[in-house]
Amino acid sequence: MTDQIGLFEAMSTQRQITRFKKDPVPREAIDQIIEAATKAPSGGNTQPWEFVVITDPELISKIGLIYKDLWLGARGDGPATGETPVYQAARYLANHFHEVPAMILVCVDHSRTTGYTPGAPIERGRHASSIWLAMQNLFLAARALGLGTRLTTTHIRREEEVKALLGIPDHVETVALTPLGYPRGRFGPTDRRPAAEVTSYNRWGNRG
Amino acid sequence: MTDQIGLFEAMSTQRQITRFKKDPVPREAIDQIIEAATKAPSGGNTQPWEFVVITDPELISKIGLIYKDLWLGARGDGPATGETPVYQAARYLANHFHEVPAMILVCVDHSRTTGYTPGAPIERGRHASSIWLAMQNLFLAARALGLGTRLTTTHIRREEEVKALLGIPDHVETVALTPLGYPRGRFGPTDRRPAAEVTSYNRWGNRG
Repeated sequence: MTDQIGLFEAMSTQRQITRFKKDPVPREAIDQIIEAATKAPSGGNTQPWEFVVITDPELISKIGLIYKDLWLGARGDGPATGETPVYQAARYLANHFHEVPAMILVCVDHSRTTGYTPGAPIERGRHASSIWLAMQNLFLAARALGLGTRLTTTHIRREEEVKALLGIPDHVETVALTPLGYPRGRFGPTDRRPAAEVTSYNRWGNRG
Repeated sequence: MTDQIGLFEAMSTQRQITRFKKDPVPREAIDQIIEAATKAPSGGNTQPWEFVVITDPELISKIGLIYKDLWLGARGDGPATGETPVYQAARYLANHFHEVPAMILVCVDHSRTTGYTPGAPIERGRHASSIWLAMQNLFLAARALGLGTRLTTTHIRREEEVKALLGIPDHVETVALTPLGYPRGRFGPTDRRPAAEVTSYNRWGNRG
């Protein structure tokens, strides 16, 4: 196992990364990241997760351009006046998603969940509790290995095309798509509201 | 900051805990756990999370008994023949949730999310991407401090009652409820499918 960054250090320096170097991501790192994801809890330990790693430049280009179309289509081409840094970063990623070195598409295979009926339409979001914890493990593990990620869900509006490109069957829901690569720029402390402002003790709004 | 457990060690020894000691949970530990949660990414960095910490024994008892009623109501009172260990553990928790030393109710305040319309009914699950990553941070931080947690969502079927007990307003969604306390029994390796069985490369089912 690679150098173990401390848990709290990893969490407090996890940033959403939008600018990536071209360097390829070593297979070993990808496998370690996904292994970390699979350690997460899931409902009844059903582990319905599936991870589709995309390293083929042609697929990355196609999926990245779908993302770009959707993102810019919803928001317009040029930077709006007064765009926040968070928004500017998101825009940068939209314009460059088709050039990232790798992507991971995080999926739920509904056929491995409790109460699945073969052939029935899948209920999006129903198994959130069985996929999102794994996703945060994935992001933290990437951070530990010096790799950047960013949570995105925009592709869902053209999910059928993305699934067709990757041969993903009907009983599988694509939950999130992250770029994966070495960041240009640094990890580091993030801008958050103090915990005391979002904690209540025994009664809503009792900040203790 | 308390002793930093390695990230990968924390992830690989995170267990769902169902048996708790009576010992109270120090306030400092709770605050540290919630601070860790707030380091997570959220959509547009909106940070719509709210954490309701329940340490009052009367509230714990009321909420724990609601959970018990729901759990046993759906599954029956006695252990079914051939119940799996995962299921047995869940049943144990259902029978003892009203006695745990603390609970944390993890919430989304929809009034802090993008596109919120005051007074409109909230759309459950819509902001999953802005709460579940924080929740895994919370679980991992608890693990690091030797505290056990377990992801549960059963209370949602009687959410209005739980919200009323805690004075939680309409624009807030309760996403998950975890007990919090020192475990009887140990953390340790968990039983998971190998990562290679849930990873595809560039095409669904291409196990690389």
